[in-house]
Amino acid sequence: DALQTLAFECISRAINISASTRLTLLEQLIEASGHRGMVMGQAIDLASVGQQVDLDHLQKMHRFKTGALIKAAVLMGARATEQVSPEQLASLSRYADAIGLAFQVQDDILDVIADTQTLGKTQGADQARGKPTYVSLLGLQSAQAKAQALHQEALAALEGFDARADALRQLSAYIIGRSH
Amino acid sequence: DALQTLAFECISRAINISASTRLTLLEQLIEASGHRGMVMGQAIDLASVGQQVDLDHLQKMHRFKTGALIKAAVLMGARATEQVSPEQLASLSRYADAIGLAFQVQDDILDVIADTQTLGKTQGADQARGKPTYVSLLGLQSAQAKAQALHQEALAALEGFDARADALRQLSAYIIGRSH
Repeated sequence: DALQTLAFECISRAINISASTRLTLLEQLIEASGHRGMVMGQAIDLASVGQQVDLDHLQKMHRFKTGALIKAAVLMGARATEQVSPEQLASLSRYADAIGLAFQVQDDILDVIADTQTLGKTQGADQARGKPTYVSLLGLQSAQAKAQALHQEALAALEGFDARADALRQLSAYIIGRSH
Repeated sequence: DALQTLAFECISRAINISASTRLTLLEQLIEASGHRGMVMGQAIDLASVGQQVDLDHLQKMHRFKTGALIKAAVLMGARATEQVSPEQLASLSRYADAIGLAFQVQDDILDVIADTQTLGKTQGADQARGKPTYVSLLGLQSAQAKAQALHQEALAALEGFDARADALRQLSAYIIGRSH
């Protein structure tokens, strides 16, 4: 509870950013974390345990539960510069959607292939709880192919950016290459 | 979790208030609800169960746990008008401190004197849990006298305001007159 509020506090006090931009950043983080973002995703997730869900349902759930905050982090960084164009924001939004989904697909892959010690949580935990995953819906090989495709989609979204976007490119590679 | 974020959302979208005032209101609510406000008060409260605490400790705990948000509600209403003077804010701050404390003293009194049905929670619940209360520290009569004194303090703080502050005066009377 303290940390959630602290995020808003940090933005509201970022005095090197104009008041109107700070408000925009706050609105973005509020929307991403609240009832139309992370909170809704978590609610969908809790309601899905033990249910038969399809891929669309799973993607919707993750888009809100983890994707919304990842996207907010990318766009807030761009907006804080106060020099970003609407076209650049649209590209970064596509990038963020791709890495947000890739993060979750890779999470589901690791739940199956990583050993418990590497993962830092119990291997197979999602499967054991009857939670739908990308691996259970697509199979392991297709899930791995999907993670790769999302990485390529993320890189394609950044085509209009120069080397200053390399950290974002590396982040995408890290997400699908990580082992825990 | 959804409602906490929703409060910030409502303020950030109050388009009839200037951006800089909205930021001020957000800062006030953030400070009151976060680790220097309600969250800290709740943490102190949890750490106090079963402990021997004195009146100072109890007042500090309540000042953060419930008082901070009550104060923020009073001051944010005033600040939203964009016409309030520093002197008026200081008076309203004194008023809010008094009713915030009165609310808690009355809560402790009701925990002892009200029957469970009227209270809507189990009578004597705080006592049974070994939680320190104003009644256990002061005795019932002194606690009742303290609630009255705080009500008078709240009214005195509003002396410079005309009839438009009557709702605040009635709120103070309601707090110490309520039976649940």
